[in-house]
Amino acid sequence: MQAYRVESDLLGELNIPVDAYFGVQTQRAINNFKISNHQLAHYPEFIKALAVVKLGAAQANFELGILNEDIYKAISYACNELMEGRFTDQFPIDMIQGGAGTSVNMNANEVIANIALEYLGKEKGDYQYCSPNDHVNLSQSTNDAYPSALKLALFEMNKQLLAALEKLYFAFDKKAAEFENVIKMGRTQLQDAVPMTLGQEFEGFSITFKKEIQSITRSALNLLEINMGATAIGTGLNAIPDYAQLCTSKIAAITNEPVKLAENLVEATSDTSAFVEYSSGLKRLSIKLSKICNDLRLLASGPRTGLFELKLPPKQPGSSIMPGKVNPVIPEVVNQVCFKVIGNDLTVTFAAEAGQLQLNVMEPIIAFSIMESIQYLTNAIRTLRTECVEGIIANTEHLRQEVQNSIGIVTALNPHIGYKASTKIAKEALETGRSVYDLVLEHQLLTEEKLNEILDPKNMLGPHI
Amino acid sequence: MQAYRVESDLLGELNIPVDAYFGVQTQRAINNFKISNHQLAHYPEFIKALAVVKLGAAQANFELGILNEDIYKAISYACNELMEGRFTDQFPIDMIQGGAGTSVNMNANEVIANIALEYLGKEKGDYQYCSPNDHVNLSQSTNDAYPSALKLALFEMNKQLLAALEKLYFAFDKKAAEFENVIKMGRTQLQDAVPMTLGQEFEGFSITFKKEIQSITRSALNLLEINMGATAIGTGLNAIPDYAQLCTSKIAAITNEPVKLAENLVEATSDTSAFVEYSSGLKRLSIKLSKICNDLRLLASGPRTGLFELKLPPKQPGSSIMPGKVNPVIPEVVNQVCFKVIGNDLTVTFAAEAGQLQLNVMEPIIAFSIMESIQYLTNAIRTLRTECVEGIIANTEHLRQEVQNSIGIVTALNPHIGYKASTKIAKEALETGRSVYDLVLEHQLLTEEKLNEILDPKNMLGPHI
Amino acid sequence: MQAYRVESDLLGELNIPVDAYFGVQTQRAINNFKISNHQLAHYPEFIKALAVVKLGAAQANFELGILNEDIYKAISYACNELMEGRFTDQFPIDMIQGGAGTSVNMNANEVIANIALEYLGKEKGDYQYCSPNDHVNLSQSTNDAYPSALKLALFEMNKQLLAALEKLYFAFDKKAAEFENVIKMGRTQLQDAVPMTLGQEFEGFSITFKKEIQSITRSALNLLEINMGATAIGTGLNAIPDYAQLCTSKIAAITNEPVKLAENLVEATSDTSAFVEYSSGLKRLSIKLSKICNDLRLLASGPRTGLFELKLPPKQPGSSIMPGKVNPVIPEVVNQVCFKVIGNDLTVTFAAEAGQLQLNVMEPIIAFSIMESIQYLTNAIRTLRTECVEGIIANTEHLRQEVQNSIGIVTALNPHIGYKASTKIAKEALETGRSVYDLVLEHQLLTEEKLNEILDPKNMLGPHI
Amino acid sequence: MQAYRVESDLLGELNIPVDAYFGVQTQRAINNFKISNHQLAHYPEFIKALAVVKLGAAQANFELGILNEDIYKAISYACNELMEGRFTDQFPIDMIQGGAGTSVNMNANEVIANIALEYLGKEKGDYQYCSPNDHVNLSQSTNDAYPSALKLALFEMNKQLLAALEKLYFAFDKKAAEFENVIKMGRTQLQDAVPMTLGQEFEGFSITFKKEIQSITRSALNLLEINMGATAIGTGLNAIPDYAQLCTSKIAAITNEPVKLAENLVEATSDTSAFVEYSSGLKRLSIKLSKICNDLRLLASGPRTGLFELKLPPKQPGSSIMPGKVNPVIPEVVNQVCFKVIGNDLTVTFAAEAGQLQLNVMEPIIAFSIMESIQYLTNAIRTLRTECVEGIIANTEHLRQEVQNSIGIVTALNPHIGYKASTKIAKEALETGRSVYDLVLEHQLLTEEKLNEILDPKNMLGPHI
Repeated sequence: MQAYRVESDLLGELNIPVDAYFGVQTQRAINNFKISNHQLAHYPEFIKALAVVKLGAAQANFELGILNEDIYKAISYACNELMEGRFTDQFPIDMIQGGAGTSVNMNANEVIANIALEYLGKEKGDYQYCSPNDHVNLSQSTNDAYPSALKLALFEMNKQLLAALEKLYFAFDKKAAEFENVIKMGRTQLQDAVPMTLGQEFEGFSITFKKEIQSITRSALNLLEINMGATAIGTGLNAIPDYAQLCTSKIAAITNEPVKLAENLVEATSDTSAFVEYSSGLKRLSIKLSKICNDLRLLASGPRTGLFELKLPPKQPGSSIMPGKVNPVIPEVVNQVCFKVIGNDLTVTFAAEAGQLQLNVMEPIIAFSIMESIQYLTNAIRTLRTECVEGIIANTEHLRQEVQNSIGIVTALNPHIGYKASTKIAKEALETGRSVYDLVLEHQLLTEEKLNEILDPKNMLGPHI
Repeated sequence: MQAYRVESDLLGELNIPVDAYFGVQTQRAINNFKISNHQLAHYPEFIKALAVVKLGAAQANFELGILNEDIYKAISYACNELMEGRFTDQFPIDMIQGGAGTSVNMNANEVIANIALEYLGKEKGDYQYCSPNDHVNLSQSTNDAYPSALKLALFEMNKQLLAALEKLYFAFDKKAAEFENVIKMGRTQLQDAVPMTLGQEFEGFSITFKKEIQSITRSALNLLEINMGATAIGTGLNAIPDYAQLCTSKIAAITNEPVKLAENLVEATSDTSAFVEYSSGLKRLSIKLSKICNDLRLLASGPRTGLFELKLPPKQPGSSIMPGKVNPVIPEVVNQVCFKVIGNDLTVTFAAEAGQLQLNVMEPIIAFSIMESIQYLTNAIRTLRTECVEGIIANTEHLRQEVQNSIGIVTALNPHIGYKASTKIAKEALETGRSVYDLVLEHQLLTEEKLNEILDPKNMLGPHI
Repeated sequence: MQAYRVESDLLGELNIPVDAYFGVQTQRAINNFKISNHQLAHYPEFIKALAVVKLGAAQANFELGILNEDIYKAISYACNELMEGRFTDQFPIDMIQGGAGTSVNMNANEVIANIALEYLGKEKGDYQYCSPNDHVNLSQSTNDAYPSALKLALFEMNKQLLAALEKLYFAFDKKAAEFENVIKMGRTQLQDAVPMTLGQEFEGFSITFKKEIQSITRSALNLLEINMGATAIGTGLNAIPDYAQLCTSKIAAITNEPVKLAENLVEATSDTSAFVEYSSGLKRLSIKLSKICNDLRLLASGPRTGLFELKLPPKQPGSSIMPGKVNPVIPEVVNQVCFKVIGNDLTVTFAAEAGQLQLNVMEPIIAFSIMESIQYLTNAIRTLRTECVEGIIANTEHLRQEVQNSIGIVTALNPHIGYKASTKIAKEALETGRSVYDLVLEHQLLTEEKLNEILDPKNMLGPHI
Repeated sequence: MQAYRVESDLLGELNIPVDAYFGVQTQRAINNFKISNHQLAHYPEFIKALAVVKLGAAQANFELGILNEDIYKAISYACNELMEGRFTDQFPIDMIQGGAGTSVNMNANEVIANIALEYLGKEKGDYQYCSPNDHVNLSQSTNDAYPSALKLALFEMNKQLLAALEKLYFAFDKKAAEFENVIKMGRTQLQDAVPMTLGQEFEGFSITFKKEIQSITRSALNLLEINMGATAIGTGLNAIPDYAQLCTSKIAAITNEPVKLAENLVEATSDTSAFVEYSSGLKRLSIKLSKICNDLRLLASGPRTGLFELKLPPKQPGSSIMPGKVNPVIPEVVNQVCFKVIGNDLTVTFAAEAGQLQLNVMEPIIAFSIMESIQYLTNAIRTLRTECVEGIIANTEHLRQEVQNSIGIVTALNPHIGYKASTKIAKEALETGRSVYDLVLEHQLLTEEKLNEILDPKNMLGPHI
């Protein structure tokens, strides 16, 4: 038989499981929001970031003389417990919720208050000694504490994404070196273009990810601009002068990150542009990741009627009916993650546009969508590297033959015989199936020696006199 | 200590937990796809639909004489076990996967084969007596079995959505009757327009949902067009004549739904338009649901500086800092679900566009996105009804006063004094703060009797001579 | 020197070019909205539809005895002038406008009034004899006249789209017949699958468009449900009983289409679902059109290092630097149009969600976006047919060789030697480069006679015993 | 009768209007692409940027000794003609085109060649003296010249957007100063929150635009990274060493902007991330602009049954049926532009994801979409400022009364009587309709003097001891 304690709020009394560290407002949120079955408890970085914010506020309040030492110590103890990963099961509320994050903030306030109460030798729920609102939430509102914690949480989660990206960048870079001398035909518009090396192609992939690491690192920095001290609507009502800056400094010290205070707290409190910009960055990454996975699938098409330039590591039988078929399942799953991230970015767009007056009440779905995107991308990028990229093999000989057999090499003749004459050679090659080499000689356009030099694929891989 | 049995496939041998009903290909999928942590096991309708498809195929194969009776009976037994909800824990693969659903299909084939083997008194894994590929998957390919099962699963899940919508429709309809005589000002472009009743406004909401029920019911019917017998690419290779139609009939009989065979199996096998259209329908529902939640929040704005036309049931304290504040948290959470569904629809759009040649390999993310949308919408719609709509109260007296005080009623004078004269009255009312009624009399434009009749709000609620 | 006449409205006086048929409210719109440079004048179907609506209203008003015969005749004359395509230059307002279409409606009211005035022998602007508001707009509001006209205009424009689609369907169908005996390898997940004919592939394309014609025809029918008689907010204020139904019948008669009245006019007046659904249909068409263009570009890749299954008609030199290069420029331009349509559908989604209370003020951008989508799609589909599809040539011999050379044909052995044995053959073929045929014989799995029968590609193109 | 000259290319001969400066490839593009009716001729910044690129290339080629002085001077002359805005009518090709911009590049090459030929005293079309391919396009490919010119064009167009934004920022800033002492209630979640000044609210708007100016300026800088010297696929084939860097320097000098060469030309040639990021920036701006227009419309709702905090300048009569109605048409049109920009960003997303291998062939729709977005936004932002923001008037007295009458001021009591006691007061005020002030005194919670100090709205506008 489950035992209860009774707590009350504006709406009246409610039974709370007797050993729960959360309180009445968390219980109301549990009852109100049964939507996604994704609990706050599954997002440890978010819980830790809430604790960081609460600790920073408590430190500032104590230093400013508006929080007494006993309660301050108890709150500090409780925040540290959360920062070390304990009590995560006390955050059972749905990530998709109304109320602009009030339930998340109060869940944190209540759990911290009750841990603090036990630390002080009091009963859970005996909030006169440490109140979720008057002490844990002192000088704060959901409207500053929630988005500030959310930003810190995303910044932490982003580190995992960056780490995965870094490794993928190196994996492609290593392959680029491995394929340095593998000559192949480049293609534009799916039509044969001019020669390049497979190393150059993979170096292009690696550079793309290097640039993404830089871009995402930069846009994540916006997440370190917080609005503590804004309280309800940015005017700072009920916060005392100096609190905003002091609290921000405390949070910077706790996290050891360059956290800073927003320029204008009224603007900052309804503004979601740091989320929008970061989500746009994830979208941009997804666009490029998806393009590269498309390329890998295309280059690995075959085995007998495709381009067959690459062999991807076989991961599983490809068909329940076609024996021997092996499919590029890893790039395929990455493509799909990219589409999910692009969809999530649209959700963020809608939610951001729906802000009204002094607040954006849709921040919980922004939080949920971006966190999902980070997690899926991190998993997908790790999977792409370990299950695919690191094991790619080049069909070197096939690639070499395609260059020799190509018409595209005629481009190298332009500087020597002009675009118009080259066009004639290309056209004749296409219509007759003969080689550019033979046709140039037959038409006596160049000497054999000169032609050999020009058409040496090695001379086509870069600028050349 | 966990014990293993060894199974093998194209890529070699692999250890399988000895009491697992799944086999080597499921195990490879577990290893390959660690992306979302959403397992197939969490989607019971999908597992049941896979069993329906496998049972239908087995019945057709048996009737056509290409599956022997013992194995047929064993497969039937196994499918029925799944259809009754057992063994769902045997589907531990990630919903986001490469391979176009091959892992889902093989997971079903393997679990069914192993249940069947036990039924036949054989060991799990002894596939010579009942093979996942040769018997359970007989006359099938992932490319027909997977999308067919997916469609049936979505059709089932959609029933829950429709049931929730139906109840919401009735809830609004009941409120419309309750508010039948509550006169208020209608608004266009957020500016005062002309009078209406709150009952008319709520009837509009109810009709919207009635129409959505019809539209979604219709677009869900497309999900009953399946491509069994297509096998790998729609040509029906390895299926015998009559199988496609017979299998479809069996599935129709098992589900008791008007399931039918696609007109052209090559086209159907790469086509995702039933998914696209159904997802578009969910998007359209979300657009309207979001608009109505926006309206509810706006009409309930206040309590002292808003429109304050409605009181929504208070669900939780609205602020960690502002005492007494109560927010419209239920419509807010519904708005956010709508944004998620619209994002998911974009994911479906990208995935559908990415089909290539004889298949769309992105169907797993389509499946995942639509299933998420259905679940969230069903939960949100139920929540909106029980936690909000059913308890809405009208601020009747405030609404009545606003009509009396309005300038918009001047519109009713048009047929009597013309648009130009009415404009003058309206302008003067606006500038002086005086009432339309007084001004018309002062300017001697109409007799008091006539004016009383015209400006009686009851006469403004519908067409009138 | 331009001469002016003076007109006035609620906001005061304004100069109007003396020979303009539009009046003061149109002039205000010209001044207010300088956004897109796309004038209403460029959309003749919209102007005609406005005239249809105004004529239908005038007929109903006359029949109901609230419009006198002289003015009725004059308005009828004016509407007919517009329906015959005259005076389109009198609609110079920007398609992107605030005011929910009031400027469009008033532009039509003013032009019709002034044409009517001249017909009556009066001066332009002498509105006592025929007023834009009191006579032309009688029993109407922008909120019924504008969306009703918009729907009729889209329905007309859609006919051009359907005509283009019909021809594209036939063009693919004709090619399907031409390629009936061209055997090729089908592909799933870009990997070799099993044989099919190029005719089957093109038939798949043609069926896709046939289904789209049906779907779009069906969703366009929703556009024929209008809300005339709703007046300002759906309550029908200032319309007399019977007007709504009568006006709708008149419009049905004028257009000779099954136009019908919405079930609930309050609901209908703020509802945009007919636009949302139709736009979703254009998106679905674009998804499929883009997929098919992707296929054409892929199948035509080459000439020496691609799949090279198809030759598309050469349309222009493909490169400023690479002589002889020819690119698939027609499918490429169609892809891009599809992306624009998908973007426009998102614009429609946002605009539809932004409806508030009794109206959706964002309808002008919905109108503009859908009209753009229809026009671009119609042009793109015509271009695809005439400049590409009709001239496609198959590389028949190359395709035949690929089938002979393939491993995928091993699938046909399943029913004879089982999936497991077939897998071994496939694996050996892949690793050694040898043919399936030789390996089966070498391993003595089947007689040569039986093998010849099974591996005859003709026997792989459909269900087979 | 129009006279023709005959030109030829890979595909054969074609008639060109005798006085056209464009040539055969432009003519083919005219014939092939009849899609949008938006001609390159309507985008003067794009034509100028093409001329800049061609001039920079010519300068580099001349300096490197591969272009003779006569031809160099003639090309320079021609480029300068274009840069001064002449010959724009010679660019009649559709902006939506296949071929990855080859038609745009060749249109520029041909026009420049023919202007140069006339400068040299030759006939138009006599390309032996100055060839579009061999001289104007020397050391270039479409794949470097087109995206480089596009980036420069967007950078120029962006300056106009920034100028409009700057003025809007100042307009809001000026209003913020004007409204500095207008006290009002702030709102969160559409419910009354705590007091603020209208000046603070408008300052929030102004800061938003200040931040956007910074963000967009920063993301536009990416557009100055170009890939000249990449030639066909980034390998630099047919360019000589030093050309890439020299050409880039020349372009930097001509434009007087910090144009720089991409780090890796293979990566840069298929990469569209500068476009994606810039378009994301326009989307972010649109989200915020739309939110602020929503706020303006909401705050101006009324006149008698809305919030009625602001009066927007009346721009036109608001209704064809409701006399005296005035609607917020300017914010409404801006909302719609924002939705169009968000839709265009999705088009860009799709187009960017569709890149394949060494090129993204979808760049023309990216160009078209972003240019449309910039133009519409620039117009909308200018319109918002001049037609709305600059004329906004506050309903000061009404706003003051709302603060006095509010319950939200109870929040200021928290630090003095605690959240729990404040909650009781708020609840009683809501239920009884009485004022917070009276209830606090009645319950003897604070002295009148203390209460007067706490509840002085001026003390609620910022942090306070």
